[in-house]
Amino acid sequence: MPRRYPVCPFEPSSGASVKDVLEGMERVSFQGRMLGAAFRIWRDMLKANVYIFFGLAGAMVPAGMRKILVFLIENRYLDCLVATGANLFHDLHETLGRRHFMVDPNVDDHEMREQGLDRIYDTYAPERDFILTDHYVMDFARTLDPAQPATTARFFALLGERADRDKKEDGLITAAWRNRVPIYCPAIADSSYGIALAVLAAKTGHKVTLDLVGDVVETEELAARYRTGVIYVGGGTPKNFVQQTEVTTAILRGGCRGHEYAIQITADAPQWGGLSGCTFQEAQSWGKISAKAKMASVHADATIALPILASGLAQTGIRRKKPRPVTRNP
Amino acid sequence: MPRRYPVCPFEPSSGASVKDVLEGMERVSFQGRMLGAAFRIWRDMLKANVYIFFGLAGAMVPAGMRKILVFLIENRYLDCLVATGANLFHDLHETLGRRHFMVDPNVDDHEMREQGLDRIYDTYAPERDFILTDHYVMDFARTLDPAQPATTARFFALLGERADRDKKEDGLITAAWRNRVPIYCPAIADSSYGIALAVLAAKTGHKVTLDLVGDVVETEELAARYRTGVIYVGGGTPKNFVQQTEVTTAILRGGCRGHEYAIQITADAPQWGGLSGCTFQEAQSWGKISAKAKMASVHADATIALPILASGLAQTGIRRKKPRPVTRNP
Amino acid sequence: MPRRYPVCPFEPSSGASVKDVLEGMERVSFQGRMLGAAFRIWRDMLKANVYIFFGLAGAMVPAGMRKILVFLIENRYLDCLVATGANLFHDLHETLGRRHFMVDPNVDDHEMREQGLDRIYDTYAPERDFILTDHYVMDFARTLDPAQPATTARFFALLGERADRDKKEDGLITAAWRNRVPIYCPAIADSSYGIALAVLAAKTGHKVTLDLVGDVVETEELAARYRTGVIYVGGGTPKNFVQQTEVTTAILRGGCRGHEYAIQITADAPQWGGLSGCTFQEAQSWGKISAKAKMASVHADATIALPILASGLAQTGIRRKKPRPVTRNP
Amino acid sequence: MPRRYPVCPFEPSSGASVKDVLEGMERVSFQGRMLGAAFRIWRDMLKANVYIFFGLAGAMVPAGMRKILVFLIENRYLDCLVATGANLFHDLHETLGRRHFMVDPNVDDHEMREQGLDRIYDTYAPERDFILTDHYVMDFARTLDPAQPATTARFFALLGERADRDKKEDGLITAAWRNRVPIYCPAIADSSYGIALAVLAAKTGHKVTLDLVGDVVETEELAARYRTGVIYVGGGTPKNFVQQTEVTTAILRGGCRGHEYAIQITADAPQWGGLSGCTFQEAQSWGKISAKAKMASVHADATIALPILASGLAQTGIRRKKPRPVTRNP
Repeated sequence: MPRRYPVCPFEPSSGASVKDVLEGMERVSFQGRMLGAAFRIWRDMLKANVYIFFGLAGAMVPAGMRKILVFLIENRYLDCLVATGANLFHDLHETLGRRHFMVDPNVDDHEMREQGLDRIYDTYAPERDFILTDHYVMDFARTLDPAQPATTARFFALLGERADRDKKEDGLITAAWRNRVPIYCPAIADSSYGIALAVLAAKTGHKVTLDLVGDVVETEELAARYRTGVIYVGGGTPKNFVQQTEVTTAILRGGCRGHEYAIQITADAPQWGGLSGCTFQEAQSWGKISAKAKMASVHADATIALPILASGLAQTGIRRKKPRPVTRNP
Repeated sequence: MPRRYPVCPFEPSSGASVKDVLEGMERVSFQGRMLGAAFRIWRDMLKANVYIFFGLAGAMVPAGMRKILVFLIENRYLDCLVATGANLFHDLHETLGRRHFMVDPNVDDHEMREQGLDRIYDTYAPERDFILTDHYVMDFARTLDPAQPATTARFFALLGERADRDKKEDGLITAAWRNRVPIYCPAIADSSYGIALAVLAAKTGHKVTLDLVGDVVETEELAARYRTGVIYVGGGTPKNFVQQTEVTTAILRGGCRGHEYAIQITADAPQWGGLSGCTFQEAQSWGKISAKAKMASVHADATIALPILASGLAQTGIRRKKPRPVTRNP
Repeated sequence: MPRRYPVCPFEPSSGASVKDVLEGMERVSFQGRMLGAAFRIWRDMLKANVYIFFGLAGAMVPAGMRKILVFLIENRYLDCLVATGANLFHDLHETLGRRHFMVDPNVDDHEMREQGLDRIYDTYAPERDFILTDHYVMDFARTLDPAQPATTARFFALLGERADRDKKEDGLITAAWRNRVPIYCPAIADSSYGIALAVLAAKTGHKVTLDLVGDVVETEELAARYRTGVIYVGGGTPKNFVQQTEVTTAILRGGCRGHEYAIQITADAPQWGGLSGCTFQEAQSWGKISAKAKMASVHADATIALPILASGLAQTGIRRKKPRPVTRNP
Repeated sequence: MPRRYPVCPFEPSSGASVKDVLEGMERVSFQGRMLGAAFRIWRDMLKANVYIFFGLAGAMVPAGMRKILVFLIENRYLDCLVATGANLFHDLHETLGRRHFMVDPNVDDHEMREQGLDRIYDTYAPERDFILTDHYVMDFARTLDPAQPATTARFFALLGERADRDKKEDGLITAAWRNRVPIYCPAIADSSYGIALAVLAAKTGHKVTLDLVGDVVETEELAARYRTGVIYVGGGTPKNFVQQTEVTTAILRGGCRGHEYAIQITADAPQWGGLSGCTFQEAQSWGKISAKAKMASVHADATIALPILASGLAQTGIRRKKPRPVTRNP
């Protein structure tokens, strides 16, 4: 312990920007310090110009995070999105002009059911609106050739192209398509996309096949080609899927670098042993994260952390618009 | 509030069986009450002879839960397993005679890395053992016809048949195969199975295609054919995948019954808004769970809850061996 | 890592006792392992015959844990109880023949209010019953001499003596009195005891004075006299109060041993930085816990852990009845 | 559900102030919405000019929150502080010019012990600095008359007066003294204050007596005299102590209003049944919170929430300097 770094008590100021607040938080303790560190590391990633995988789990789009994600895509504050199917379905729902609504989380769910309102904690949407989006997906899926398995990146690029024509507002899928940001969805069948594809298959016999192995191959190639950073909002399949790119690379090509920058925002915790809540130190034992990586785990609800971090990023003025040449996108 | 049910203080007894303890816990408060309720509802499911979907997430097999799961399968205390790929990979690892080991969770992960030991909180296994299992999966995958997409249930049934010949100990996959319990793995690519299939494809061009839409179609058929109960250990894709069967049924066939019995054991919580931690009340608003369902959410680490519940079930003497006619299995 | 200890998958058995289950759990992972470790360490404490401080926070008595605590006192599985005032008030309520009742935690609290029912998550009691207990405390407090400040241990010993005559059922306070187990309550004013004493003072001018500094002096003496172990159910003032005995001893007498055995059962977690959820490793930096202590932190609801642990202890047959000579009790 | 309030996706902006961000967050979901609601309700409290009780638990001062609390006191954004002894001891430590330092939470605690460094998660201070503060408290306590029990409000007012002369920087105790904000510390013996008073008593026989019943009487009077709002950072004794003022009032004076505004920032959760994590709805069943209260529970680490909220408040320009006539302060 050669040098001592004192905690600097945070001083509220009427003139402080969000960026100032985040910078000040890095000198407090506990999760405030981690949020400050996450902000700094994200900026470091952008400066180092590494390839940024962004894992998205939890009901973030219904929770009002869509425009933040669009902002991150538009400004190239991420390079590749790995998401749950649900987020991508709710994104399409909003892109097509439909909304989510606020509700008391202690509402009577039997009444919600009777009114056809599907609840997500303190938020809901009418089921009939979801069904309209189901049909949009089915119409789109009819255009896919069952004989040609598509990676999920291709699936969402094609959907993005179509939705960009039909959109009422911009969303993840449309912005990602326009900005050549690939979207992977490793558990796509486990969502309303899966439901729509199954209903289409059961009703019409048109059975889309997805090239999930292709998803693994492509993301490994991205991880092998670039120096990489990772940002995880929640855990689940997006986190694991991005983490495993380094394991796949090590097996296929030997050596092992690990991701060089790592941020996670999670309400989970290490003591339950699952991958969603595990530390980046644990990931270092596997070689998923580089031994020298810059890392910050923020234990916080992402609906608090993301608006703060994104507002702070907006105030940095960092520009990183130029799309990387992503070969696999249509 | 017409009638009052007093809390009955729990009385320790030298003669009490685990079953007695669980029955006594239903009259205490908080999560103890929920664990007692989960035990009763599981027995109710078995008595009502509903079809039981069992979702398995979290690192349960590395954590020493494999034999409990085999016990549940052998005794038909579950009818269909939906699991993360990781659990099924670690199961194969143990089935082939390899082990997981205990470690202090504060161990130096750089040293672990140098020794090639992959850590899962307080547990680890040598990476070279995992690689042997990777090769076993690749050898198996070579036997699959790329032109014929397989559902994950078919994938694991065929793997179970093969592993049953090679096994050192019984595991989920082998027991499920022998007992005609289908195993679905909606995020199979997001695991060492995905890695093995990608490495095989990259190295040899033999690219297995999985019929994920078929998984959704089949599980919907199971949900439509039977009265159902659900048990979730952790959240993630297994929980969502089983929950969505009822949504798919409602769209395809109209009407909506919802699962009639529901248990979850989770370290997550509702206030973060994600599906993994959401209440069954919330699921009732969607029609995923029946308005009249018997439900218990236990907020506890499954490595505590499962040994207790399984020991209690073993002491009930309930027999439910006869396999249901599952048509899709090979 | 010279020797490897494999995880031993837990095997359910119809003949297993609770003790067997707990012993088996020590070879699994995550919090199951910790519960098994807690059981072993508690037995080690009893064998080593150290002086056991037991900290009790959270609404454990309303939750049906009273008889477990009486069992622990009667069998001398603890030597000194440090509790929140609320637990000791609810204990008196039950000792005098009143009950707590079960309720759905989603009940309408406005209706509860109208009916005069005070809710504690999924449990409640009628307010009028609490007021009867308030009056019992006031009647007792009238017998205390305002000019003679009483330690809380003395307060509860005298109350125990009185309640033992009036009791309908045995409780912590009565059992502790009969078994010469001192009860300390460092935040006594922060509970219905504080309310009753304030109401008495405001209405009659009879103002009881408590010798809180005496509590600190006495518990330091206990910690200095004996080799010690600690068991914490929840955090709060009971945990901190017992932890600080070692700091006080170090200042007063020099040297520092720290508690030699340590168990905590908590739903809190370290990452929030508070003392309630902190690790025993952190406590070692302060010298509160011995560098060589046997320690187990169990992240679990105590309404699950306590019934299991107490049932397991009941099956060990360990007898440790003889009271230690506690000088300060009346 | 007569009217629908859509979720408004949050839009990052380079020109947004912290206040703007908080206002935008009220239209997202989950805990982001709650943080936004807490900000609005705090402002409502200030506008309604109710008497604001502020409960402070958790290691907030070591975590760099001292200046935020001073800011809240100086601007009269709170009227009465109820705190744990630890926060008030660490405040004195910093006020006298000593610091807390940053450390990796995975540091080796045996090494910390050898160097005499006391750790609080990712923060520490040298023990010898704490001992200097202990002596300051003992010197102060010598000036108190053992025959005259002091409320903790009086204890901290007198200490504030003294520390204001000796201070290197301003702290809670000094700012509260200057601004006539009373500080209550219901568990004062459970902290280094208790240790210092016990050491003083053991070494010199000078035994300070605290009038804890007086604390309850005084806070009840404040709750009875004013319309009230409450803000809780963490749970523990501060939360319960403030909550119980309404119960005491109801018993002493009949009727029951309950606190009219209520905010809590907590890392705890309702399902464990304890008071620290319980909902304000539950508190309404007891009459502690008014049936019509405006309420927000924010599940977040206070080291994230407080810097954001305080910065937002600083940008509102609300002025509320004039001290209320608090009769009991010296």
